[in-house]
Amino acid sequence: MNIPQRTLMGPGPSDVPARILEALARPTIGHLDPVFLKIMDGIRGKLQQVFRTKNEMTLAMSGTGSAGMETVFANLVEPGDKVLVAINGVFGSRMADVADRYGAAVEKIETRWGTAFDQQSILDAIARTNPKIVAIVHAETSTGVRQDVDRIGAAVREKNALFILDCVTSLAGIPVDIDNWSVDAAYSGTQKCLSCPPGLSPVTLSDRAVARLLARKSKVKNWYLDLSLIKQYWGQERFYHHTAPINMLYALNEALDMILEEGLPVRFERHAAMHSLLRQGLEKLGCAYVSQEGHHLPMLNAVAVPPGREDATIRRRLLEDYSIEIGGGLGDFKGKAWRIGLMGYGASRKNVTLLLAALAAVL
Amino acid sequence: MNIPQRTLMGPGPSDVPARILEALARPTIGHLDPVFLKIMDGIRGKLQQVFRTKNEMTLAMSGTGSAGMETVFANLVEPGDKVLVAINGVFGSRMADVADRYGAAVEKIETRWGTAFDQQSILDAIARTNPKIVAIVHAETSTGVRQDVDRIGAAVREKNALFILDCVTSLAGIPVDIDNWSVDAAYSGTQKCLSCPPGLSPVTLSDRAVARLLARKSKVKNWYLDLSLIKQYWGQERFYHHTAPINMLYALNEALDMILEEGLPVRFERHAAMHSLLRQGLEKLGCAYVSQEGHHLPMLNAVAVPPGREDATIRRRLLEDYSIEIGGGLGDFKGKAWRIGLMGYGASRKNVTLLLAALAAVL
Repeated sequence: MNIPQRTLMGPGPSDVPARILEALARPTIGHLDPVFLKIMDGIRGKLQQVFRTKNEMTLAMSGTGSAGMETVFANLVEPGDKVLVAINGVFGSRMADVADRYGAAVEKIETRWGTAFDQQSILDAIARTNPKIVAIVHAETSTGVRQDVDRIGAAVREKNALFILDCVTSLAGIPVDIDNWSVDAAYSGTQKCLSCPPGLSPVTLSDRAVARLLARKSKVKNWYLDLSLIKQYWGQERFYHHTAPINMLYALNEALDMILEEGLPVRFERHAAMHSLLRQGLEKLGCAYVSQEGHHLPMLNAVAVPPGREDATIRRRLLEDYSIEIGGGLGDFKGKAWRIGLMGYGASRKNVTLLLAALAAVL
Repeated sequence: MNIPQRTLMGPGPSDVPARILEALARPTIGHLDPVFLKIMDGIRGKLQQVFRTKNEMTLAMSGTGSAGMETVFANLVEPGDKVLVAINGVFGSRMADVADRYGAAVEKIETRWGTAFDQQSILDAIARTNPKIVAIVHAETSTGVRQDVDRIGAAVREKNALFILDCVTSLAGIPVDIDNWSVDAAYSGTQKCLSCPPGLSPVTLSDRAVARLLARKSKVKNWYLDLSLIKQYWGQERFYHHTAPINMLYALNEALDMILEEGLPVRFERHAAMHSLLRQGLEKLGCAYVSQEGHHLPMLNAVAVPPGREDATIRRRLLEDYSIEIGGGLGDFKGKAWRIGLMGYGASRKNVTLLLAALAAVL
């Protein structure tokens, strides 16, 4: 097994620092070992800081970011529940698909790929549809768009509904403020701005969401992700559910330490500054952003493939000649856009400079 | 994070050799990187050898062993399908619970904890109930019992049903023979006899099972584990589904290499020999097996806590004074039995000798 040293500037996984890889490789211990249980408690506390929440039910699910999405819908949807999903890219569509599989009556509102919703249009849809759940993607990884959501939570609570927010790409790269935004369920992935390998999904549920879960009329239709069982393992009972991915949790613990050592405000500024630097360079090279002005994600830069250039050829040359990975487009943007990641540890002057120089040479 | 060096002799996770931890810590690369896709193809081929199958759909699911269980039921059960489950411990009960959540009409047959089923009783139940699926645990981790299954497959096929086999604890420790036993769906976990950290679940489906999956009337009620989507990523299409747990797959690849270098027959003999050695020692110490004679699992030795001894105290002393982990009992055996693992790399003379000496001192 001959693994090259890439510079990962796609939509994730992102570059993982040596310190986190070292943590990953520490000796495996048991999932009920007192030492491990203490690490789990530490992870909860650090995740609470990163999500900016006091939610007791804050943990890492044993799957990738998509498992986090599945977790919140599996646990919070009962058959027939009306779920309002805002769709402006792949991950909004995926939320609708997942909710549908758990029997939701899905109501969709859509806006063009590359644009964000005006919050008022979401508020209007909430008023019109009376949903039990409102689901929104904070950072749409397929289009590089940031969705403002600070006005949503109050309206959702007024309807006695729950607010689900997809923070897979946003967490630890731009401000995420679960409690102040009155978010009831959020999830992320380790392989984006947390700078960890893929394999875990941090999830947080408000007390209102937990109450909904515990008041379900039917069992959660997913044993592996059933939080009513899993909370007995992450909680004081320490009741065995499934064997936790021990080493991945070491890595997440170390990644969270690095984030809190840097400090969230400094980290957000770094992402913003590296994004500005990258943007200036990309625009000089004729790569225009496909995401709406004022809503660019610093960690996921979606730009048009310059006219007359072939997407796959250029990405292959970056990979083969420079060992740099950038992402291709998904869905509507397939073959038309690149997704350039500046995530966590990878949001560095070194990476920006290298990519711009390589891209200039290849173009 | 101060991780002690344990000797893991519980029901899993088991000791992970340095070579596999080193593989785990190699640089993360992208899930669509050609180098990584080649590793995935290699893993499929090696898993086919270890499962002894030609099944094209052989892969590693992005979750722990329980996710493998969930995968086969989520994909193969449609609402109303009759599923016959043989239960003689925790994991049989779990299969029934999971099948029920996907809408199965579950038929249970049970035998006493610690005993195996007479195969004829399973055949009789198949004849009586006409199931669409028959689900059996090969190695019951809660009781240390091996279930013979060589006569089941033919009867299942005669009914045009599917045969699901739980190989979480058996794979790579005792013979597993998917094709010769006409098993249609099997799953395992990386943290037992594969000697890898927990986090992945090897799964294999026969062409008959795949045909059933592709002929479903309804979508799989689990997006994350939907094999009709995931096969487009593991197959030639390489269509993005979710971000694979890259580093965990490095570790699995290395673990499979180590298994095939040793050779399966040699590995099975080693497990059997170490089990004999352990057994002699345990019986001298007054620890009687709670599993049925002739059906002991070499990798999971379930023995009664000697009369007058307190389970938790002794396990705590082993952990604190000797850094050895053994497992407590589950369910019916809670507080009454220990589960002593000799799994994969950990099935060694060194571990047996150490445990027997420590146990003698503590008792």
